[in-house]
Amino acid sequence: MRSKTSSGRKPPHHSRGKSVAPRSSLPAGRAVIGIHAVTEALRVRPRSVSPLWLRTGWQDSQELQKIEMEARSRQIRIEEYPAGHLDRLCSGHQGVLAFVNQDPELDWERLKGESIRRVVLLDGVEDPHNLGAILRTSWLLGVEAVFVPEMRAVHLSPAVSKVAQGALEHVPLEISSSMTQAIGLLKENGFWVFGLSHEARSNLYDLKLPEKVAWVLGSEGAGLRKPVERQCDELISIPQMDPQASFNVSVAAALALGETFRQHQILENPRNQGK
Amino acid sequence: MRSKTSSGRKPPHHSRGKSVAPRSSLPAGRAVIGIHAVTEALRVRPRSVSPLWLRTGWQDSQELQKIEMEARSRQIRIEEYPAGHLDRLCSGHQGVLAFVNQDPELDWERLKGESIRRVVLLDGVEDPHNLGAILRTSWLLGVEAVFVPEMRAVHLSPAVSKVAQGALEHVPLEISSSMTQAIGLLKENGFWVFGLSHEARSNLYDLKLPEKVAWVLGSEGAGLRKPVERQCDELISIPQMDPQASFNVSVAAALALGETFRQHQILENPRNQGK
Repeated sequence: MRSKTSSGRKPPHHSRGKSVAPRSSLPAGRAVIGIHAVTEALRVRPRSVSPLWLRTGWQDSQELQKIEMEARSRQIRIEEYPAGHLDRLCSGHQGVLAFVNQDPELDWERLKGESIRRVVLLDGVEDPHNLGAILRTSWLLGVEAVFVPEMRAVHLSPAVSKVAQGALEHVPLEISSSMTQAIGLLKENGFWVFGLSHEARSNLYDLKLPEKVAWVLGSEGAGLRKPVERQCDELISIPQMDPQASFNVSVAAALALGETFRQHQILENPRNQGK
Repeated sequence: MRSKTSSGRKPPHHSRGKSVAPRSSLPAGRAVIGIHAVTEALRVRPRSVSPLWLRTGWQDSQELQKIEMEARSRQIRIEEYPAGHLDRLCSGHQGVLAFVNQDPELDWERLKGESIRRVVLLDGVEDPHNLGAILRTSWLLGVEAVFVPEMRAVHLSPAVSKVAQGALEHVPLEISSSMTQAIGLLKENGFWVFGLSHEARSNLYDLKLPEKVAWVLGSEGAGLRKPVERQCDELISIPQMDPQASFNVSVAAALALGETFRQHQILENPRNQGK
Protein backbone atom coordinates (compact mmCIF):
# COMPACT_ATOMS: atom_id res chain seq x y z
CA MET A 1 0.00 0.00 0.00
CA ARG A 2 1.30 3.39 -0.77
CA SER A 3 0.24 6.96 -0.50
CA LYS A 4 -1.30 8.78 -3.40
CA THR A 5 0.90 10.23 -6.07
CA SER A 6 -0.01 12.39 -9.00
CA SER A 7 0.73 9.84 -11.65
CA GLY A 8 2.64 10.81 -14.70
CA ARG A 9 3.73 14.22 -13.47
CA LYS A 10 7.20 15.29 -14.54
CA PRO A 11 9.71 17.15 -12.35
CA PRO A 12 9.50 20.96 -12.42
CA HIS A 13 10.36 22.34 -15.79
CA HIS A 14 7.91 24.71 -17.32
CA SER A 15 7.59 27.75 -19.43
CA ARG A 16 6.44 31.00 -17.88
CA GLY A 17 4.44 34.06 -18.65
CA LYS A 18 1.95 33.95 -21.45
CA SER A 19 3.36 31.10 -23.46
CA VAL A 20 1.36 27.92 -23.12
CA ALA A 21 3.24 25.01 -21.62
CA PRO A 22 2.57 21.59 -23.10
CA ARG A 23 1.11 19.09 -20.60
CA SER A 24 4.31 17.07 -20.50
CA SER A 25 6.13 19.90 -18.77
CA LEU A 26 3.74 20.45 -15.90
CA PRO A 27 5.15 21.28 -12.48
CA ALA A 28 5.41 18.41 -9.99
CA GLY A 29 2.80 17.80 -7.33
CA ARG A 30 -0.91 17.32 -7.37
CA ALA A 31 -2.88 20.00 -9.16
CA VAL A 32 -5.50 21.58 -6.92
CA ILE A 33 -8.10 23.88 -8.47
CA GLY A 34 -10.78 26.30 -7.35
CA ILE A 35 -10.98 29.06 -4.77
CA HIS A 36 -11.86 26.88 -1.76
CA ALA A 37 -9.42 24.06 -2.44
CA VAL A 38 -6.48 26.37 -3.14
CA THR A 39 -7.28 28.55 -0.12
CA GLU A 40 -7.22 25.45 2.08
CA ALA A 41 -3.93 24.22 0.57
CA LEU A 42 -2.37 27.63 1.29
CA ARG A 43 -3.72 27.54 4.85
CA VAL A 44 -2.70 23.98 5.72
CA ARG A 45 0.60 23.45 3.86
CA PRO A 46 1.83 26.74 2.37
CA ARG A 47 5.41 25.50 2.15
CA SER A 48 4.36 22.73 -0.20
CA VAL A 49 2.64 24.94 -2.77
CA SER A 50 4.73 25.78 -5.81
CA PRO A 51 3.93 27.29 -8.16
CA LEU A 52 0.54 28.98 -7.97
CA TRP A 53 -1.14 29.69 -11.29
CA LEU A 54 -3.51 32.63 -11.63
CA ARG A 55 -5.48 33.55 -14.71
CA THR A 56 -4.66 36.82 -16.39
CA GLY A 57 -6.94 39.50 -14.97
CA TRP A 58 -7.13 37.94 -11.48
CA GLN A 59 -7.17 41.50 -10.15
CA ASP A 60 -10.86 41.78 -11.05
CA SER A 61 -11.79 39.11 -8.49
CA GLN A 62 -11.69 39.79 -4.75
CA GLU A 63 -11.28 36.10 -4.03
CA LEU A 64 -8.33 35.75 -6.39
CA GLN A 65 -6.83 38.94 -4.94
CA LYS A 66 -6.98 37.37 -1.48
CA ILE A 67 -5.26 34.21 -2.72
CA GLU A 68 -2.59 36.22 -4.49
CA MET A 69 -1.90 38.26 -1.36
CA GLU A 70 -1.69 35.12 0.79
CA ALA A 71 0.66 33.42 -1.68
CA ARG A 72 2.84 36.52 -2.02
CA SER A 73 3.18 36.87 1.76
CA ARG A 74 4.35 33.22 1.84
CA GLN A 75 6.82 33.86 -0.97
CA ILE A 76 5.19 31.27 -3.17
CA ARG A 77 6.06 31.49 -6.85
CA ILE A 78 3.10 32.93 -8.74
CA GLU A 79 2.67 32.50 -12.49
CA GLU A 80 0.07 34.19 -14.63
CA TYR A 81 -1.49 32.56 -17.68
CA PRO A 82 -4.46 33.24 -19.90
CA ALA A 83 -7.54 31.39 -18.56
CA GLY A 84 -7.41 29.11 -21.59
CA HIS A 85 -4.12 27.68 -20.37
CA LEU A 86 -5.73 26.60 -17.11
CA ASP A 87 -8.71 25.25 -19.06
CA ARG A 88 -6.39 22.82 -20.79
CA LEU A 89 -5.65 21.12 -17.50
CA CYS A 90 -9.17 21.16 -16.13
CA SER A 91 -12.40 23.11 -16.41
CA GLY A 92 -13.94 24.67 -13.32
CA HIS A 93 -10.68 26.11 -12.00
CA GLN A 94 -12.18 29.53 -11.16
CA GLY A 95 -8.95 31.14 -12.31
CA VAL A 96 -6.61 29.48 -9.84
CA LEU A 97 -4.53 26.34 -9.68
CA ALA A 98 -1.92 25.29 -7.13
CA PHE A 99 0.67 22.53 -7.41
CA VAL A 100 0.95 20.91 -3.99
CA ASN A 101 3.94 18.75 -3.19
CA GLN A 102 2.85 17.14 0.04
CA ASP A 103 -0.10 15.02 1.11
CA PRO A 104 -1.67 14.26 4.46
CA GLU A 105 -0.37 10.92 5.65
CA LEU A 106 -2.04 8.09 7.45
CA ASP A 107 -0.24 7.19 10.66
CA TRP A 108 -0.25 3.40 10.63
CA GLU A 109 0.80 3.28 14.28
CA ARG A 110 -2.15 5.42 15.30
CA LEU A 111 -4.43 3.16 13.28
CA LYS A 112 -3.90 0.47 15.90
CA GLY A 113 -5.04 2.68 18.75
CA GLU A 114 -8.36 4.16 19.72
CA SER A 115 -7.88 7.59 18.19
CA ILE A 116 -8.60 6.47 14.60
CA ARG A 117 -12.17 5.30 14.62
CA ARG A 118 -13.64 5.86 11.18
CA VAL A 119 -12.27 4.89 7.78
CA VAL A 120 -13.86 4.47 4.35
CA LEU A 121 -13.02 2.04 1.54
CA LEU A 122 -14.28 2.72 -1.98
CA ASP A 123 -14.31 -0.41 -4.07
CA GLY A 124 -14.16 1.04 -7.56
CA VAL A 125 -15.81 4.48 -7.49
CA GLU A 126 -15.19 5.88 -10.96
CA ASP A 127 -16.71 9.34 -10.97
CA PRO A 128 -14.37 12.15 -9.83
CA HIS A 129 -17.37 14.08 -8.55
CA ASN A 130 -18.32 11.22 -6.24
CA LEU A 131 -14.76 10.74 -4.98
CA GLY A 132 -14.42 14.47 -4.29
CA ALA A 133 -17.79 14.61 -2.52
CA ILE A 134 -16.96 11.57 -0.35
CA LEU A 135 -13.58 13.07 0.61
CA ARG A 136 -15.26 16.33 1.60
CA THR A 137 -17.89 14.59 3.74
CA SER A 138 -15.22 12.30 5.21
CA TRP A 139 -13.15 15.28 6.27
CA LEU A 140 -16.06 17.00 7.98
CA LEU A 141 -17.30 13.84 9.71
CA GLY A 142 -13.91 12.88 11.10
CA VAL A 143 -12.90 10.02 8.80
CA GLU A 144 -9.18 9.39 9.13
CA ALA A 145 -8.46 7.77 5.77
CA VAL A 146 -10.13 6.81 2.49
CA PHE A 147 -8.85 3.69 0.74
CA VAL A 148 -9.21 3.12 -3.00
CA PRO A 149 -7.93 0.31 -5.23
CA GLU A 150 -5.06 0.83 -7.63
CA MET A 151 -7.02 -0.40 -10.63
CA ARG A 152 -10.47 0.41 -12.02
CA ALA A 153 -11.07 3.41 -9.80
CA VAL A 154 -10.69 7.16 -9.99
CA HIS A 155 -7.71 8.64 -8.13
CA LEU A 156 -6.81 12.24 -7.40
CA SER A 157 -7.28 14.78 -10.17
CA PRO A 158 -7.91 18.51 -10.43
CA ALA A 159 -11.65 17.78 -10.73
CA VAL A 160 -11.58 15.75 -7.50
CA SER A 161 -9.73 18.58 -5.71
CA LYS A 162 -12.38 21.07 -6.80
CA VAL A 163 -15.28 19.07 -5.41
CA ALA A 164 -13.37 18.06 -2.27
CA GLN A 165 -13.05 21.78 -1.37
CA GLY A 166 -9.93 21.40 0.74
CA ALA A 167 -10.47 17.86 2.04
CA LEU A 168 -7.35 16.65 0.18
CA GLU A 169 -5.25 18.57 2.71
CA HIS A 170 -6.81 16.63 5.58
CA VAL A 171 -7.86 13.12 4.59
CA PRO A 172 -5.18 10.70 3.36
CA LEU A 173 -6.18 8.85 0.20
CA GLU A 174 -4.56 5.42 0.44
CA ILE A 175 -4.11 3.56 -2.82
CA SER A 176 -4.19 -0.15 -2.15
CA SER A 177 -3.18 -2.87 -4.57
CA SER A 178 -5.82 -5.14 -3.05
CA MET A 179 -9.02 -4.11 -1.30
CA THR A 180 -9.38 -7.48 0.39
CA GLN A 181 -5.88 -7.09 1.84
CA ALA A 182 -6.72 -3.58 3.04
CA ILE A 183 -9.84 -4.94 4.74
CA GLY A 184 -7.77 -7.69 6.35
CA LEU A 185 -5.31 -5.14 7.68
CA LEU A 186 -8.10 -3.02 9.13
CA LYS A 187 -9.64 -6.04 10.84
CA GLU A 188 -6.27 -6.87 12.40
CA ASN A 189 -6.21 -3.36 13.77
CA GLY A 190 -9.53 -3.65 15.52
CA PHE A 191 -11.94 -2.29 12.91
CA TRP A 192 -15.35 -3.82 12.32
CA VAL A 193 -15.86 -3.78 8.57
CA PHE A 194 -19.35 -3.00 7.23
CA GLY A 195 -20.19 -3.36 3.55
CA LEU A 196 -23.07 -1.33 2.15
CA SER A 197 -25.29 -3.53 0.02
CA HIS A 198 -28.79 -3.22 -1.37
CA GLU A 199 -29.53 -6.81 -0.60
CA ALA A 200 -28.48 -6.80 3.02
CA ARG A 201 -31.21 -7.39 5.58
CA SER A 202 -29.64 -5.37 8.39
CA ASN A 203 -30.78 -1.78 8.39
CA LEU A 204 -28.34 1.06 9.07
CA TYR A 205 -30.73 2.60 11.57
CA ASP A 206 -31.15 -0.57 13.64
CA LEU A 207 -27.42 -0.96 14.07
CA LYS A 208 -25.33 -0.56 17.20
CA LEU A 209 -21.94 0.49 15.90
CA PRO A 210 -18.64 -0.44 17.53
CA GLU A 211 -15.86 1.99 18.40
CA LYS A 212 -13.79 1.42 15.26
CA VAL A 213 -15.79 1.35 12.06
CA ALA A 214 -14.75 0.80 8.44
CA TRP A 215 -17.38 1.39 5.73
CA VAL A 216 -16.94 -0.29 2.35
CA LEU A 217 -18.88 1.12 -0.63
CA GLY A 218 -19.00 -0.33 -4.11
CA SER A 219 -18.88 1.27 -7.52
CA GLU A 220 -21.70 3.44 -8.88
CA GLY A 221 -23.07 0.75 -11.14
CA ALA A 222 -22.18 -2.69 -9.88
CA GLY A 223 -21.89 -2.22 -6.12
CA LEU A 224 -19.47 -4.35 -4.09
CA ARG A 225 -17.51 -7.05 -5.85
CA LYS A 226 -18.08 -10.53 -4.42
CA PRO A 227 -14.57 -11.12 -2.98
CA VAL A 228 -14.74 -7.75 -1.23
CA GLU A 229 -18.27 -8.43 0.01
CA ARG A 230 -17.16 -11.75 1.47
CA GLN A 231 -14.34 -10.04 3.39
CA CYS A 232 -16.72 -7.71 5.22
CA ASP A 233 -17.76 -8.55 8.77
CA GLU A 234 -21.33 -7.52 8.09
CA LEU A 235 -23.49 -6.28 5.21
CA ILE A 236 -25.82 -3.36 5.82
CA SER A 237 -28.49 -1.66 3.75
CA ILE A 238 -29.82 1.86 4.00
CA PRO A 239 -33.60 1.86 4.24
CA GLN A 240 -35.34 3.48 1.29
CA MET A 241 -38.81 3.89 -0.13
CA ASP A 242 -38.20 2.20 -3.47
CA PRO A 243 -36.22 -1.04 -3.42
CA GLN A 244 -35.51 -0.83 -7.15
CA ALA A 245 -33.77 2.53 -6.89
CA SER A 246 -30.53 3.37 -5.14
CA PHE A 247 -28.83 6.24 -3.42
CA ASN A 248 -26.00 8.06 -5.12
CA VAL A 249 -22.78 6.59 -3.68
CA SER A 250 -21.73 9.90 -2.12
CA VAL A 251 -25.13 10.22 -0.44
CA ALA A 252 -24.92 6.61 0.80
CA ALA A 253 -21.50 7.41 2.26
CA ALA A 254 -22.87 10.53 3.94
CA LEU A 255 -25.77 8.61 5.50
CA ALA A 256 -23.50 5.85 6.82
CA LEU A 257 -20.92 8.33 8.12
CA GLY A 258 -23.57 10.59 9.65
CA GLU A 259 -25.02 7.69 11.64
CA THR A 260 -21.52 6.62 12.71
CA PHE A 261 -20.71 10.16 13.82
CA ARG A 262 -23.96 10.30 15.79
CA GLN A 263 -23.29 7.05 17.64
CA HIS A 264 -19.65 7.90 18.30
CA GLN A 265 -20.76 11.28 19.67
CA ILE A 266 -22.95 9.41 22.18
CA LEU A 267 -20.02 7.15 23.10
CA GLU A 268 -17.97 10.26 23.78
CA ASN A 269 -20.73 12.06 25.68
CA PRO A 270 -22.95 9.36 27.13
CA ARG A 271 -25.16 11.96 28.79
CA ASN A 272 -26.58 12.74 25.33
CA GLN A 273 -27.91 9.24 24.97
CA GLY A 274 -31.64 8.95 24.50
CA LYS A 275 -32.04 12.64 23.97
CA MET B 1 -48.16 28.62 -4.90
CA ARG B 2 -48.35 26.51 -8.01
CA SER B 3 -46.97 23.29 -9.33
CA LYS B 4 -43.90 23.18 -11.48
CA THR B 5 -44.21 23.88 -15.16
CA SER B 6 -41.60 23.59 -17.84
CA SER B 7 -41.39 27.27 -18.53
CA GLY B 8 -41.29 28.51 -22.08
CA ARG B 9 -42.17 25.23 -23.74
CA LYS B 10 -44.36 25.55 -26.83
CA PRO B 11 -47.24 23.17 -27.69
CA PRO B 12 -46.32 20.12 -29.79
CA HIS B 13 -45.14 21.07 -33.22
CA HIS B 14 -41.86 19.63 -34.29
CA SER B 15 -39.97 18.32 -37.24
CA ARG B 16 -39.22 14.63 -37.45
CA GLY B 17 -36.59 12.23 -38.63
CA LYS B 18 -33.13 13.51 -39.15
CA SER B 19 -33.83 17.19 -39.56
CA VAL B 20 -32.86 19.23 -36.55
CA ALA B 21 -35.75 21.03 -34.88
CA PRO B 22 -35.02 24.50 -33.57
CA ARG B 23 -35.48 24.85 -29.80
CA SER B 24 -38.56 27.00 -30.22
CA SER B 25 -40.52 24.07 -31.62
CA LEU B 26 -39.82 21.59 -28.84
CA PRO B 27 -42.61 19.24 -27.78
CA ALA B 28 -44.59 20.19 -24.67
CA GLY B 29 -43.81 18.76 -21.26
CA ARG B 30 -40.72 18.53 -19.13
CA ALA B 31 -37.69 17.03 -20.83
CA VAL B 32 -36.33 14.03 -18.93
CA ILE B 33 -32.96 12.59 -19.93
CA GLY B 34 -30.83 9.56 -19.20
CA ILE B 35 -31.49 5.82 -18.96
CA HIS B 36 -32.64 5.75 -15.31
CA ALA B 37 -34.85 8.83 -15.41
CA VAL B 38 -36.59 7.85 -18.66
CA THR B 39 -37.07 4.26 -17.52
CA GLU B 40 -38.75 5.54 -14.35
CA ALA B 41 -40.99 7.94 -16.33
CA LEU B 42 -42.09 5.05 -18.56
CA ARG B 43 -42.75 2.89 -15.50
CA VAL B 44 -44.66 5.45 -13.44
CA ARG B 45 -46.61 7.48 -16.01
CA PRO B 46 -46.32 5.88 -19.47
CA ARG B 47 -49.45 7.63 -20.73
CA SER B 48 -47.86 11.01 -20.17
CA VAL B 49 -44.73 10.38 -22.22
CA SER B 50 -44.83 11.77 -25.74
CA PRO B 51 -42.69 11.74 -27.73
CA LEU B 52 -39.63 9.68 -26.83
CA TRP B 53 -36.41 10.69 -28.56
CA LEU B 54 -33.71 8.10 -29.26
CA ARG B 55 -30.33 8.76 -30.78
CA THR B 56 -29.59 7.21 -34.14
CA GLY B 57 -27.94 3.86 -33.57
CA TRP B 58 -29.80 3.12 -30.32
CA GLN B 59 -29.84 -0.52 -31.44
CA ASP B 60 -26.21 -0.87 -30.32
CA SER B 61 -27.19 -0.32 -26.66
CA GLN B 62 -29.05 -2.96 -24.66
CA GLU B 63 -30.40 -0.33 -22.30
CA LEU B 64 -31.76 1.80 -25.15
CA GLN B 65 -33.23 -1.33 -26.76
CA LYS B 66 -35.11 -2.03 -23.53
CA ILE B 67 -36.47 1.49 -23.43
CA GLU B 68 -37.49 1.34 -27.07
CA MET B 69 -39.30 -1.96 -26.51
CA GLU B 70 -41.11 -0.61 -23.45
CA ALA B 71 -42.15 2.56 -25.30
CA ARG B 72 -43.28 0.62 -28.35
CA SER B 73 -45.40 -1.71 -26.24
CA ARG B 74 -47.05 1.36 -24.73
CA GLN B 75 -47.63 2.86 -28.19
CA ILE B 76 -45.60 5.91 -27.34
CA ARG B 77 -44.43 7.96 -30.32
CA ILE B 78 -40.73 7.37 -30.87
CA GLU B 79 -38.53 9.74 -32.86
CA GLU B 80 -34.96 9.15 -33.91
CA TYR B 81 -32.37 11.92 -34.18
CA PRO B 82 -28.61 12.11 -34.49
CA ALA B 83 -27.01 12.34 -31.02
CA GLY B 84 -25.98 15.91 -31.78
CA HIS B 85 -29.63 16.94 -31.85
CA LEU B 86 -30.10 15.68 -28.28
CA ASP B 87 -26.82 17.38 -27.30
CA ARG B 88 -28.35 20.71 -28.22
CA LEU B 89 -30.94 20.35 -25.50
CA CYS B 90 -28.63 18.95 -22.85
CA SER B 91 -25.44 16.96 -22.49
CA GLY B 92 -25.41 13.70 -20.57
CA HIS B 93 -28.59 12.34 -22.17
CA GLN B 94 -27.16 8.86 -22.80
CA GLY B 95 -29.04 8.74 -26.10
CA VAL B 96 -32.54 9.10 -24.72
CA LEU B 97 -34.94 11.92 -23.90
CA ALA B 98 -38.61 11.78 -22.96
CA PHE B 99 -41.12 14.60 -22.90
CA VAL B 100 -43.37 14.02 -19.90
CA ASN B 101 -46.69 15.82 -19.66
CA GLN B 102 -47.68 15.12 -16.09
CA ASP B 103 -46.09 15.73 -12.71
CA PRO B 104 -46.59 14.19 -9.29
CA GLU B 105 -48.87 16.44 -7.29
CA LEU B 106 -48.86 17.44 -3.67
CA ASP B 107 -52.16 16.68 -1.99
CA TRP B 108 -52.80 19.75 0.13
CA GLU B 109 -55.55 17.98 2.04
CA ARG B 110 -53.19 15.17 3.02
CA LEU B 111 -50.64 17.75 4.10
CA LYS B 112 -52.88 18.54 7.08
CA GLY B 113 -52.97 14.94 8.27
CA GLU B 114 -50.38 12.63 9.75
CA SER B 115 -49.44 10.81 6.56
CA ILE B 116 -47.20 13.61 5.22
CA ARG B 117 -44.38 13.94 7.69
CA ARG B 118 -41.31 15.17 5.87
CA VAL B 119 -40.92 18.10 3.49
CA VAL B 120 -37.90 20.09 2.30
CA LEU B 121 -37.61 23.79 1.40
CA LEU B 122 -34.65 24.98 -0.64
CA ASP B 123 -34.10 28.69 -0.23
CA GLY B 124 -32.23 29.50 -3.41
CA VAL B 125 -30.26 26.41 -4.45
CA GLU B 126 -28.80 27.34 -7.83
CA ASP B 127 -26.91 24.27 -9.01
CA PRO B 128 -28.99 21.77 -11.04
CA HIS B 129 -26.76 18.96 -9.76
CA ASN B 130 -27.63 19.82 -6.16
CA LEU B 131 -31.36 20.11 -6.86
CA GLY B 132 -31.34 16.77 -8.69
CA ALA B 133 -29.37 15.09 -5.90
CA ILE B 134 -31.70 16.46 -3.20
CA LEU B 135 -34.78 15.30 -5.13
CA ARG B 136 -33.30 11.81 -5.47
CA THR B 137 -32.46 11.56 -1.76
CA SER B 138 -35.86 13.05 -0.86
CA TRP B 139 -37.63 10.41 -2.87
CA LEU B 140 -35.74 7.55 -1.26
CA LEU B 141 -36.11 8.91 2.27
CA GLY B 142 -39.85 9.50 2.01
CA VAL B 143 -40.02 13.26 1.60
CA GLU B 144 -43.44 14.23 0.28
CA ALA B 145 -42.62 17.55 -1.35
CA VAL B 146 -39.73 19.88 -2.11
CA PHE B 147 -40.46 23.62 -2.15
CA VAL B 148 -38.36 26.11 -4.11
CA PRO B 149 -38.79 29.84 -4.62
CA GLU B 150 -39.93 31.26 -7.93
CA MET B 151 -36.95 33.62 -8.22
CA ARG B 152 -33.19 33.17 -7.83
CA ALA B 153 -33.28 29.38 -7.78
CA VAL B 154 -32.86 26.52 -10.19
CA HIS B 155 -36.08 24.79 -11.31
CA LEU B 156 -36.58 21.63 -13.31
CA SER B 157 -34.36 21.06 -16.32
CA PRO B 158 -33.04 18.09 -18.28
CA ALA B 159 -29.86 18.19 -16.15
CA VAL B 160 -31.91 18.03 -12.95
CA SER B 161 -33.88 15.06 -14.31
CA LYS B 162 -30.67 13.18 -15.08
CA VAL B 163 -29.27 13.53 -11.56
CA ALA B 164 -32.65 12.92 -9.92
CA GLN B 165 -32.72 9.46 -11.57
CA GLY B 166 -36.49 9.10 -11.59
CA ALA B 167 -37.30 11.14 -8.46
CA LEU B 168 -39.20 13.70 -10.56
CA GLU B 169 -41.92 11.10 -11.06
CA HIS B 170 -42.40 10.78 -7.30
CA VAL B 171 -41.61 14.00 -5.44
CA PRO B 172 -43.68 17.11 -6.23
CA LEU B 173 -41.56 20.20 -6.74
CA GLU B 174 -43.63 23.11 -5.49
CA ILE B 175 -42.68 26.52 -6.79
CA SER B 176 -43.58 29.13 -4.23
CA SER B 177 -43.69 32.87 -4.80
CA SER B 178 -42.61 33.39 -1.19
CA MET B 179 -40.60 31.03 0.99
CA THR B 180 -41.75 32.75 4.17
CA GLN B 181 -45.37 32.21 3.11
CA ALA B 182 -44.66 28.56 2.35
CA ILE B 183 -43.11 28.16 5.82
CA GLY B 184 -46.16 29.83 7.37
CA LEU B 185 -48.48 27.45 5.56
CA LEU B 186 -46.49 24.43 6.72
CA LYS B 187 -46.58 25.67 10.32
CA GLU B 188 -50.36 26.04 10.11
CA ASN B 189 -50.50 22.44 8.99
CA GLY B 190 -48.61 21.11 11.98
CA PHE B 191 -45.03 21.07 10.73
CA TRP B 192 -42.12 22.05 12.94
CA VAL B 193 -39.79 24.04 10.71
CA PHE B 194 -36.02 23.56 11.16
CA GLY B 195 -33.52 25.78 9.38
CA LEU B 196 -30.02 24.42 8.78
CA SER B 197 -27.45 27.02 9.76
CA HIS B 198 -23.72 26.97 10.46
CA GLU B 199 -24.12 29.29 13.35
CA ALA B 200 -26.84 27.43 15.19
CA ARG B 201 -25.92 26.00 18.58
CA SER B 202 -28.31 23.06 18.47
CA ASN B 203 -26.75 19.94 17.02
CA LEU B 204 -28.67 17.69 14.62
CA TYR B 205 -27.64 14.63 16.60
CA ASP B 206 -28.87 15.97 19.96
CA LEU B 207 -32.31 16.68 18.57
CA LYS B 208 -35.59 14.95 19.33
CA LEU B 209 -37.61 15.42 16.17
CA PRO B 210 -41.39 15.81 16.11
CA GLU B 211 -43.75 13.86 13.90
CA LYS B 212 -44.01 16.43 11.12
CA VAL B 213 -40.71 17.94 10.08
CA ALA B 214 -39.86 20.60 7.49
CA TRP B 215 -36.17 21.19 6.71
CA VAL B 216 -35.12 24.53 5.23
CA LEU B 217 -31.74 24.73 3.48
CA GLY B 218 -30.10 27.84 2.08
CA SER B 219 -28.21 28.49 -1.11
CA GLU B 220 -24.77 27.01 -1.79
CA GLY B 221 -22.94 30.23 -1.06
CA ALA B 222 -24.92 32.44 1.26
CA GLY B 223 -26.99 30.00 3.29
CA LEU B 224 -30.42 31.00 4.58
CA ARG B 225 -31.63 34.52 3.96
CA LYS B 226 -32.48 36.42 7.14
CA PRO B 227 -36.28 36.69 6.62
CA VAL B 228 -36.45 32.95 5.97
CA GLU B 229 -34.22 32.19 8.95
CA ARG B 230 -36.48 34.26 11.21
CA GLN B 231 -39.52 32.29 10.08
CA CYS B 232 -38.03 28.97 11.17
CA ASP B 233 -39.10 27.47 14.50
CA GLU B 234 -35.56 26.40 15.28
CA LEU B 235 -32.07 26.64 13.80
CA ILE B 236 -29.91 23.54 13.71
CA SER B 237 -26.30 22.87 12.78
CA ILE B 238 -24.71 19.65 11.62
CA PRO B 239 -21.62 18.86 13.70
CA GLN B 240 -18.39 18.92 11.73
CA MET B 241 -14.66 18.78 12.32
CA ASP B 242 -13.79 22.12 10.78
CA PRO B 243 -16.04 25.05 11.65
CA GLN B 244 -14.71 27.10 8.72
CA ALA B 245 -15.74 24.55 6.12
CA SER B 246 -19.22 23.44 5.14
CA PHE B 247 -21.04 20.45 3.79
CA ASN B 248 -22.26 20.42 0.23
CA VAL B 249 -25.95 21.35 0.38
CA SER B 250 -27.06 17.99 -1.00
CA VAL B 251 -24.98 16.19 1.64
CA ALA B 252 -26.40 18.46 4.37
CA ALA B 253 -29.90 17.59 3.14
CA ALA B 254 -29.04 13.87 3.17
CA LEU B 255 -27.72 14.05 6.75
CA ALA B 256 -30.79 15.93 8.01
CA LEU B 257 -33.20 13.63 6.17
CA GLY B 258 -31.34 10.49 7.24
CA GLU B 259 -31.62 11.46 10.90
CA THR B 260 -35.30 12.33 10.43
CA PHE B 261 -35.94 8.99 8.75
CA ARG B 262 -34.16 7.21 11.61
CA GLN B 263 -36.22 8.92 14.30
CA HIS B 264 -39.48 8.48 12.41
CA GLN B 265 -38.66 4.79 11.97
CA ILE B 266 -38.40 4.51 15.77
CA LEU B 267 -41.73 6.32 16.16
CA GLU B 268 -43.27 3.78 13.82
CA ASN B 269 -41.60 0.78 15.44
CA PRO B 270 -40.92 1.76 19.05
CA ARG B 271 -39.43 -1.64 19.80
CA ASN B 272 -36.36 -0.56 17.85
CA GLN B 273 -35.68 2.28 20.26
CA GLY B 274 -32.36 2.17 22.00
CA LYS B 275 -31.06 -0.56 19.76
